Amino acid sequence: MALIVQKFGGTSVGTTDRIRAVAKRIVATRDAGNDCVAVVSAMGDVTDELLSLAEAVNPEPPEREMDMLLATGEQVTIALLAMAIHSLGHEAISFTGAQVGIVTDAGHTKARIQEVKGDCVREALAEGRIVIVAGFQGRTPEGQITTLGRGGSDTTAVAIAAGIAADVCEIYTDVDGVFTADPRVVPDARKVDTISYEEMLEMAATGARVLQLRAVEFGRNHGVVIHVRSSFNDLPGTVVKEADASMEQAIISGVTHDTSEVKITIRDVPDQPGVAAQVFSALAEANCNVDMIVQNVSEEGSTDISFTIPKEDLVRAKRTVEAAVRHLGARTWSVDESIAKVSLVGAGMKTHPGIAAQMFNALAEAGVNIDMISTSSIRVSCVIGADQADQAVLALHSSFGLSDEDVRAETAPTAGGGN
Amino acid sequence: MALIVQKFGGTSVGTTDRIRAVAKRIVATRDAGNDCVAVVSAMGDVTDELLSLAEAVNPEPPEREMDMLLATGEQVTIALLAMAIHSLGHEAISFTGAQVGIVTDAGHTKARIQEVKGDCVREALAEGRIVIVAGFQGRTPEGQITTLGRGGSDTTAVAIAAGIAADVCEIYTDVDGVFTADPRVVPDARKVDTISYEEMLEMAATGARVLQLRAVEFGRNHGVVIHVRSSFNDLPGTVVKEADASMEQAIISGVTHDTSEVKITIRDVPDQPGVAAQVFSALAEANCNVDMIVQNVSEEGSTDISFTIPKEDLVRAKRTVEAAVRHLGARTWSVDESIAKVSLVGAGMKTHPGIAAQMFNALAEAGVNIDMISTSSIRVSCVIGADQADQAVLALHSSFGLSDEDVRAETAPTAGGGN
Repeated sequence: MALIVQKFGGTSVGTTDRIRAVAKRIVATRDAGNDCVAVVSAMGDVTDELLSLAEAVNPEPPEREMDMLLATGEQVTIALLAMAIHSLGHEAISFTGAQVGIVTDAGHTKARIQEVKGDCVREALAEGRIVIVAGFQGRTPEGQITTLGRGGSDTTAVAIAAGIAADVCEIYTDVDGVFTADPRVVPDARKVDTISYEEMLEMAATGARVLQLRAVEFGRNHGVVIHVRSSFNDLPGTVVKEADASMEQAIISGVTHDTSEVKITIRDVPDQPGVAAQVFSALAEANCNVDMIVQNVSEEGSTDISFTIPKEDLVRAKRTVEAAVRHLGARTWSVDESIAKVSLVGAGMKTHPGIAAQMFNALAEAGVNIDMISTSSIRVSCVIGADQADQAVLALHSSFGLSDEDVRAETAPTAGGGN
Repeated sequence: MALIVQKFGGTSVGTTDRIRAVAKRIVATRDAGNDCVAVVSAMGDVTDELLSLAEAVNPEPPEREMDMLLATGEQVTIALLAMAIHSLGHEAISFTGAQVGIVTDAGHTKARIQEVKGDCVREALAEGRIVIVAGFQGRTPEGQITTLGRGGSDTTAVAIAAGIAADVCEIYTDVDGVFTADPRVVPDARKVDTISYEEMLEMAATGARVLQLRAVEFGRNHGVVIHVRSSFNDLPGTVVKEADASMEQAIISGVTHDTSEVKITIRDVPDQPGVAAQVFSALAEANCNVDMIVQNVSEEGSTDISFTIPKEDLVRAKRTVEAAVRHLGARTWSVDESIAKVSLVGAGMKTHPGIAAQMFNALAEAGVNIDMISTSSIRVSCVIGADQADQAVLALHSSFGLSDEDVRAETAPTAGGGN
């Protein structure tokens, strides 16, 4: 018998029929002898409907009241799911984020979890009940209702799992797990059975949408085993956990890509101390989330600075850069909205030199030009033209032998050497 | 400067436009120099929509989860109203029933208020804010979310007013106040300027729908002045308060009628001790809300018992009565679904004998046959045929001189005697 936290997103609970299906899955887990806690999001479009109501009364609503409003979305789902489980003959009890003791800071609409009390969860489980918790929400120490922002429900699930020392936190989604590349781009992409927190963090940060970055961070910090799996079948998915000897030691875990960023280049910036600090401090103040930064080699006392930001920050960034360019006496600046970032992620890079070189070669052979490069100890990312994203991902996936066929060939006795 | 609690019902906040209108009214009260607390219901049809969601997942949902679900309705309204007030340049803060400390018993879906803490209301008012509170809901001492059932939002408003010692609790509604009779039946019915708690209780209990019985009870028990007024104009409405010397001393405050009950008659019941107790204990156990009871004079060792109950309790009552009739050996029983109850309410009855006689005469002159009669010290109620309800109300209103014209005639120097 295990203690299992299961998280179901907005699509999985989008209608009352789907809520009944989720109830059946939870009851099956319970009937198999496990203690169950379910964490759920708001039903399908509910959050959008609430946002449009808010827009109608105040285009710039105070964030505290926005949280008060949005938190009702998950509260509806938890009540309905508890009712659906009751109708299957099991005892269930629902709790809001505030009730369950998800204590956060006061950063309304993007609050950070500080503590998970979870006493009422443990008590309800001890009474033999299935526990349903509202994702995405918490409360301040003073009792104000907060929401956790993007990826909040995943984070709630992992935080609850940490708080009650669950054996595993299952994240149900519409794909079978984490893949070596986006299967829509690479048809023979392979599902990864296990992956370390570090690799999952890099993949989530560079375009793998299956699991939210914050949830992975929380899982790593508290040692929560996360199982990403499909809500449409019973197949095992991808287990995210601490790297250990038993884990498959692929050099490369996957190829990710991200077309949600734009590149800004500022040309002929005076090459003197403090210039980069001025530009990026101004961008930070404007709440622009800068990702990659490259500063080219200086020529004749001036330099070029390029950086990428999410598309949705572009309007703010343009205003800021325009002012900075005037202030710094830079020559000009430009925006490239047609970029993609392709990344290679793998813990094996630490011990296998030459991965970056192989990546650049593979891209060159595929005729893909590289605009910018950035690296971490287990990741290499290249900015390329958006129209070449798919062929870059395919080339890298093939070059590093990540498909099922490649892996079978590599491990078969008669196969030649792999990478 | 006064401390004012204002309550707005579901129709008043039924759309975002109406919420903005309510926000303007609250801000006007604030701008006039008052401290304001607003109590609001769920928007228009929201509660019905939530009920149909529940029905879809579980036709007999657990009441705790029903409260969890329904409480979201008012939470949406308070957030939107606070946002709307912000957009008018005023600081507002919303609180759920749980947050504001409406502490109830654990009677889910019909919880009773035990205590109102209200500290956060006082603090927010001291900070110069307008406070918005979710009606209809509270929490148990253990933090479970409860709802107060029918009339809950009126009750919340009066309870908050009591908890913070407000100068007045204004209940906004779609009529101008409490009338001497239903203006749809009696076109010249007169708005009552002031009325005592006792009279208002009798009127609310006998068909006046403008104010919920529980709210009046709470007001009486805690001495809260209640002002029932229109949300469509700024005219003064009806003030409900403790009877005092300054109050207009009408003998009769009003005529009410109620067509929501049915009459059940059990014939030839053995006339022996304990029979009535058996019947009505069984009905109480079946949760049938018995109103009037009449037992006719016994003839030859047997008797007839008639009583009225709300139409919605009829199915349960039929089962119970069927069993009781068999068990008691009564001859037969019947149901009359076409009845009306007309009532005359007035504190002056205590000191003016002959009111009941005048009532029966007036009904007789109007050709109205009386089925059942019951009285309190300030009320006389008669059950009559449903098709004669309007003419009975008109006859009584006229006989007791309750219209504006009658009152003007009575107080004019040249007028002849009144009643």
